Amino acid sequence: MAAVPAWTRVDTRLRREFAFRDFSEAFAFMTRVALLAEKANHHPDWSNSWSKVVIELTSHDAGGLTQRDFDLAREIDALAGP
Amino acid sequence: MAAVPAWTRVDTRLRREFAFRDFSEAFAFMTRVALLAEKANHHPDWSNSWSKVVIELTSHDAGGLTQRDFDLAREIDALAGP
Amino acid sequence: MAAVPAWTRVDTRLRREFAFRDFSEAFAFMTRVALLAEKANHHPDWSNSWSKVVIELTSHDAGGLTQRDFDLAREIDALAGP
Amino acid sequence: MAAVPAWTRVDTRLRREFAFRDFSEAFAFMTRVALLAEKANHHPDWSNSWSKVVIELTSHDAGGLTQRDFDLAREIDALAGP
Repeated sequence: MAAVPAWTRVDTRLRREFAFRDFSEAFAFMTRVALLAEKANHHPDWSNSWSKVVIELTSHDAGGLTQRDFDLAREIDALAGP
Repeated sequence: MAAVPAWTRVDTRLRREFAFRDFSEAFAFMTRVALLAEKANHHPDWSNSWSKVVIELTSHDAGGLTQRDFDLAREIDALAGP
Repeated sequence: MAAVPAWTRVDTRLRREFAFRDFSEAFAFMTRVALLAEKANHHPDWSNSWSKVVIELTSHDAGGLTQRDFDLAREIDALAGP
Repeated sequence: MAAVPAWTRVDTRLRREFAFRDFSEAFAFMTRVALLAEKANHHPDWSNSWSKVVIELTSHDAGGLTQRDFDLAREIDALAGP
């Protein structure tokens, strides 16, 4: 599972924080992540507060990280910059 | 500030959990809340995991709950049912 | 290709109009259709004006209707009611 | 009503076409425009096909262009570049 250096490994999760200019930019990013997640049938645990978005990825059904988490992390990086 | 019985008061926050059938329904609800929040210029602290959405409302600038939180809570209730 | 009776066949397209209560409800529906379309990698030609949404489906690459159009039509019907 | 040079005047409407890299980028832009429109309580007539978005602005209630159309056009320009 190739490296995703922008993400922190916390227990069985990958975690990355994103900062935007305002809510509109943050929510547009969330919409793009929603499209990725639905396409991959693999969804984040995530939170938003105004211009900040925190995304955590894990494979609930596998009880930990799988290739699907690293793949989704890289697709999200492609949206947000590495 | 009129009652919003579906919401729990946690410290200086109003909190409500919402359950949907799937991610698509949850994210469509979030999109409607985003439209309300941007219109009110008052934004939630919120999280999503698949079909669940947790919304917390507080007025960061006032250091606690204000009328804006109760107003937004009621507008969200109007989308989701009380 | 099974019937999609709510849709009208116009030349090489399937067309259906949707009416909602307001813009918020219409755009939330569009967000759900966007999730379906991205998952299917098959996207509508569509328009919106306030509470109305018009969706047209065709397979540009095939020069006409294909199974993908009927499948997406049925998935959209499942969101909106038949 | 100050100039919005990226927009074409067609009868009683302002019209601008936007091209993006893919559907995800186009729909994220539409989400941001939806937030602007709902905030302004002034909504576009718009269409989307894959990576293209066409926005038309008019004031239906006034039977033509008003300041609200030019204001929204400029806010949209601020998202998309002039």
